Amino acid sequence: MNRVAVVGAGMSRFGTRRLPATSLFAEAFREAQGSVDRGFDPSAIEAAWIGSLGFGGGQIGNAASLLASEIGAPGIPAERVENACASSGFAFRDAYLAIASGAADVALAGGVEVMNDLEPVHQRFWLGVSGDTLWERLAGATFPGVYALLAGLHMHEFGTTREQLASVAVKNHANGARNPKAQFQKEVPLERVLASPMVASPLSVFDCCSTTDGASAVILASERTARAYTDTPVWIEASAAATDALALHDRRSFTSLEATARAGAQAFARAGLRPDDVDVAEVHDCFTIAEILAVEDLGFVPKGKGGAWSDAGRSSIQGDVAVNPSGGLKAKGHPLGATGTAQVEEIFLQLRGEAGARQRSGAEVGLAHNVGGSGATCTVHLFRRG
Amino acid sequence: MNRVAVVGAGMSRFGTRRLPATSLFAEAFREAQGSVDRGFDPSAIEAAWIGSLGFGGGQIGNAASLLASEIGAPGIPAERVENACASSGFAFRDAYLAIASGAADVALAGGVEVMNDLEPVHQRFWLGVSGDTLWERLAGATFPGVYALLAGLHMHEFGTTREQLASVAVKNHANGARNPKAQFQKEVPLERVLASPMVASPLSVFDCCSTTDGASAVILASERTARAYTDTPVWIEASAAATDALALHDRRSFTSLEATARAGAQAFARAGLRPDDVDVAEVHDCFTIAEILAVEDLGFVPKGKGGAWSDAGRSSIQGDVAVNPSGGLKAKGHPLGATGTAQVEEIFLQLRGEAGARQRSGAEVGLAHNVGGSGATCTVHLFRRG
Repeated sequence: MNRVAVVGAGMSRFGTRRLPATSLFAEAFREAQGSVDRGFDPSAIEAAWIGSLGFGGGQIGNAASLLASEIGAPGIPAERVENACASSGFAFRDAYLAIASGAADVALAGGVEVMNDLEPVHQRFWLGVSGDTLWERLAGATFPGVYALLAGLHMHEFGTTREQLASVAVKNHANGARNPKAQFQKEVPLERVLASPMVASPLSVFDCCSTTDGASAVILASERTARAYTDTPVWIEASAAATDALALHDRRSFTSLEATARAGAQAFARAGLRPDDVDVAEVHDCFTIAEILAVEDLGFVPKGKGGAWSDAGRSSIQGDVAVNPSGGLKAKGHPLGATGTAQVEEIFLQLRGEAGARQRSGAEVGLAHNVGGSGATCTVHLFRRG
Repeated sequence: MNRVAVVGAGMSRFGTRRLPATSLFAEAFREAQGSVDRGFDPSAIEAAWIGSLGFGGGQIGNAASLLASEIGAPGIPAERVENACASSGFAFRDAYLAIASGAADVALAGGVEVMNDLEPVHQRFWLGVSGDTLWERLAGATFPGVYALLAGLHMHEFGTTREQLASVAVKNHANGARNPKAQFQKEVPLERVLASPMVASPLSVFDCCSTTDGASAVILASERTARAYTDTPVWIEASAAATDALALHDRRSFTSLEATARAGAQAFARAGLRPDDVDVAEVHDCFTIAEILAVEDLGFVPKGKGGAWSDAGRSSIQGDVAVNPSGGLKAKGHPLGATGTAQVEEIFLQLRGEAGARQRSGAEVGLAHNVGGSGATCTVHLFRRG
């Protein structure tokens, strides 16, 4: 397989934007373009993969060609990927495979979602479609409800506390306060998290990510091309993906997302790396419990210990592993299909030492972990500073 | 790039099935499995790409993991691709790239669509989303309307006649009559096509494809693995894709689908083949005019001559090129996301001499051409008998 690098990455400002998907995606692409050290002409893009749940911005189907035209790359092969909230993690993987195969030297991966143009009742419908329809959605289970079940069992089995869950929110909001593109850029004290209104016990408002408009874009290049763009490429050391049963009742465990565990183990094996080699990780914290499951399932901390580990500050920016220095889905925001490649953008910045006030010092190895639904789809990518 | 073969392919019976997408996809997969000469265990699948517009069968989002579980391959990386009616053409291309890269030895590509579980008003909405929303769908342009514009100009510029358009329908229904899985298995005389009710002038009912439920599945293998499954693999000689402006008014031509022309030219160049090397082609005949545009844009016949060429029987099963021996979208049916890999299935059968009453004798080289929307997305694949 040919080696593949990330040579540019960008994201739109995340938040309540209410712009067409085309405009948001173009904003993200311009940022990515601007990040390429020696400049980047969109005509160099040979193919694009773009993740989206697809319900925002007006163009619901066949949007890939529209997005390609919008960024100045009309006519290229462009494809929409939909794997719920892991859509752009999978889009990134497709772009990686295209370059690894030798079919392309330069490819684009990205994602976009407009959520705030929908009425709340439609948001609930569309969000719900990423979980199991037959057994969960039609029975009224929303994502906060589903993750609350996982949180409740984790508390029961391992003694995880609400304060430990809340510590994830406190950390990620503190990180988001240092990210000028985050949806929420304000620190939130523990007391406020604990006192926030209950959504689905034990998850309160500050345990849940938000409704976000946004886009992200990443430029990938082959080894022979990367040096034409930059002296500091970020190498993709491994790409792995997995799925799990869509419905919770078909799974073997409720205190582990097995797709994460499998994709993570494969990624580490392919890269010849171990969890303690990782300096910085963007993991899929759609709820505080989701970050705790992720750091356990990825092997940063033994199963059941994630809550105490977070509460002890071990996942802070200068902790054992900087987990979600961007603010994560929790504070940076979660525009579904845009999240996977936004995670890659943060890792790109961190490994190049360009993450400003939220920089993990000396970061050499990074990980991006993107989950779809309640864990039915997952990608894990490992990166190393070039 | 590693060489990639098709070692198995299958499709469900196409028609008004009203089954869940999971059941239809499992039916297609079992057929594909049954077509592998030395047997095939689903646990061999390392990754899957599944095309769907996604509006049928109940599970609207994140369905890839559900479909993977359904066919006995739980946990594998599985991804939904949505590029309108070219969804599974692009899914097939992704699976090809994964094997070409060396990341996998065995992959699955497929597609599924359930259209008959929707009320007609919703069908119109969902179908419309594959065309441009801002300038076309919201102005009331349906796909028959859009293709009628292309047909009208083709008639005006090149003297194409309604009888020539109708000859495509007559041929494809004659072919469909020999395909036990086609939605329509009855010959339709020219007079009946011409006398059928007008939908959008000059396209009448028999110029348009139908509303279809169905699924298809193709098993791809690397060169080093293919021979373990069969002595007669079908080699993928080239994979190409392109896009065009989504809205008609942004295009340079209305009598050519440029994405087809570009993807076709790239595919022939990569394979070192020419249009007259092709014995059998499945092209995207969502309307009769679409087949005429396709045979011209792919280079089987000069621009403007496609109508007369079809009318003269040159695209019949034993003609210059057997075009749509399966019956095409016109008679086999068009379950949107399932069409691209159903085309590959027909080429697989034809190149192995297994197409029964519709066999093109001595077929050595085949082509599959899949279009999304009114030409905004397109894949072209070339195949050779192993």
